[in-house]
Amino acid sequence: MPVATREWQLAARPHGEPTPDDFRLVELERPGPAEGQVVVRMLVMSVDPYMRGRMNAGKSYAAPWEIGETMKGGAVGRVVESRSPAVPEGSLVLADAAWRDVAVLDAAHVRVLPELPGIPPSYYLGVLGMPGLTAWVGLFRMAEFREADAVFVSGAAGAVGSLVGQFARLNGASRVVGSAGTPEKVRWLTGELGFDAAFDYHDGPVAELLRDAAPEGIDVFFDNVGGEHLEAAIGAFNEHGRGALCGAISGYNAVEPPPGPRNMFLMVGKKLSLRGFIVGDHTDMRDEFTTKVTRMVTSGDLVVRETVRDGLDDAVDTFLDLLRGGNTGKMIVKLAEG
Amino acid sequence: MPVATREWQLAARPHGEPTPDDFRLVELERPGPAEGQVVVRMLVMSVDPYMRGRMNAGKSYAAPWEIGETMKGGAVGRVVESRSPAVPEGSLVLADAAWRDVAVLDAAHVRVLPELPGIPPSYYLGVLGMPGLTAWVGLFRMAEFREADAVFVSGAAGAVGSLVGQFARLNGASRVVGSAGTPEKVRWLTGELGFDAAFDYHDGPVAELLRDAAPEGIDVFFDNVGGEHLEAAIGAFNEHGRGALCGAISGYNAVEPPPGPRNMFLMVGKKLSLRGFIVGDHTDMRDEFTTKVTRMVTSGDLVVRETVRDGLDDAVDTFLDLLRGGNTGKMIVKLAEG
Repeated sequence: MPVATREWQLAARPHGEPTPDDFRLVELERPGPAEGQVVVRMLVMSVDPYMRGRMNAGKSYAAPWEIGETMKGGAVGRVVESRSPAVPEGSLVLADAAWRDVAVLDAAHVRVLPELPGIPPSYYLGVLGMPGLTAWVGLFRMAEFREADAVFVSGAAGAVGSLVGQFARLNGASRVVGSAGTPEKVRWLTGELGFDAAFDYHDGPVAELLRDAAPEGIDVFFDNVGGEHLEAAIGAFNEHGRGALCGAISGYNAVEPPPGPRNMFLMVGKKLSLRGFIVGDHTDMRDEFTTKVTRMVTSGDLVVRETVRDGLDDAVDTFLDLLRGGNTGKMIVKLAEG
Repeated sequence: MPVATREWQLAARPHGEPTPDDFRLVELERPGPAEGQVVVRMLVMSVDPYMRGRMNAGKSYAAPWEIGETMKGGAVGRVVESRSPAVPEGSLVLADAAWRDVAVLDAAHVRVLPELPGIPPSYYLGVLGMPGLTAWVGLFRMAEFREADAVFVSGAAGAVGSLVGQFARLNGASRVVGSAGTPEKVRWLTGELGFDAAFDYHDGPVAELLRDAAPEGIDVFFDNVGGEHLEAAIGAFNEHGRGALCGAISGYNAVEPPPGPRNMFLMVGKKLSLRGFIVGDHTDMRDEFTTKVTRMVTSGDLVVRETVRDGLDDAVDTFLDLLRGGNTGKMIVKLAEG
């Protein structure tokens, strides 16, 4: 029996900041499940900054989304019909399910999730999902974080940044500093999250704000923002400083590339390293990450915050708001109870 | 008995391109050797691009040279008087001896050199010295060169670059590409040195020249030049490209910092790494380097070229000419026969 779905498709390639006209919500009938497939009713879906890059044409680390194609993304749902013994009806599953309310998926392409007290389904899109692993890989592998390092995180109130700072604090950082885009976020960082200092990057040149926040310099930089933040970090690095470059949201909607850091010559004298990375290359760390971070969550050591918005109809608005910094912690689109 | 010396001192801090007035040649009487010291008559001394940085005030990886102080640098000489049994008269020694014809040195601070057929003393300032080890460390440790990598070297006709390209070729690079500043140097690279392609960076935008020289992209970049070369390499990198940042001679005389690379966002999507380094942190590689490269030199596998200029009186002019690219291979100042 065919399955009725509602799906968001890319209607046009955005030029600069995306507008609602670049997207369309369609109603479809998808073929019912074949042998080995399951029907999943989605409970929560993810909107993430990296998705902006997929909307552009041209070569990147992943193929661009095609015009007229349903947009991709992580989601967690409940299996409502199963033709696979490995994934029985009622299972909670994570899938790269795309922006839709119901999906027919190969059982081999979903991951059955444990249902643990204190771990709602949405956490598998955030702290225990791709953003959490991104924070873990970037801090520990790419930036080679060591006890007593001073750490600076840009975009520190986001899904990834808020975890990076906490992982660093819980692992003996000498100082944890973050930047964010509103006074409320800054207060949250130095309050509930226990950052040693934080600043609103609208308040002045980032290099000066960072110098005040980390007067003894930084050893590790985790970059979600790029542009001026990267130049400031290069200037603030101590010798042997290490940067993990995770994203550059400041430039995602840029039509012209932003100016580059004018102080790259410091890379030599201070013996700095900068390493860009994509979490998909580092899934070998997932088991260690999942075990340790699940414990941090259930013990209450880790503060987890989400910004939850309701409904598939508003998913594009929620995504656009994410790009404008409307989230604190992970931005989640809630699709159904369950 | 006091020892008469002639020494070059820094007379003033250069602003932009140094002029002869920034230096002065003085005649001194230094105290004769104490117990444990030796008197060394210098045969050859080194001028190197890094020295330009030492002439500036301000914090760097090494303390700046002081005004009125004899300028430092590597030299090889013959011991003409010894008060140390460890370093007898007649020994050939390497020392951080400064710009002078005769030096009184602690025996503990000189390294006695072997005298091997086919290895003139000047090689210990170049291919078997600091520039050689710099090439080795940068290629194999910082850029993690692997067989079949395509390699781009900027400033490829210099002391370091000419070795990087050859080390890569002799170790199975799929392609070796270099940039240089004159047509003669370019011909030397693709001729005697066996580079697959080379270009004169005056001939157009470096990004375009590099695209023509390495149409399949590059995996490793060894940077001696910085600026536009760095941006071009970031653009040309294949996924997981690795850059060893050794120097940025294009900016050494700059009064204002040059524009930074406008394509740093590619670091994430292509998962690139850039690592600045100073050879002094990597002396643990010296024994392996010395053994292997001595063999490459004596076997004739490695082409070694020097630009030799005569005399201490012209040492400053030789240094200024080095900054303008007047050398092919290592620039050497010859002080005496011996």
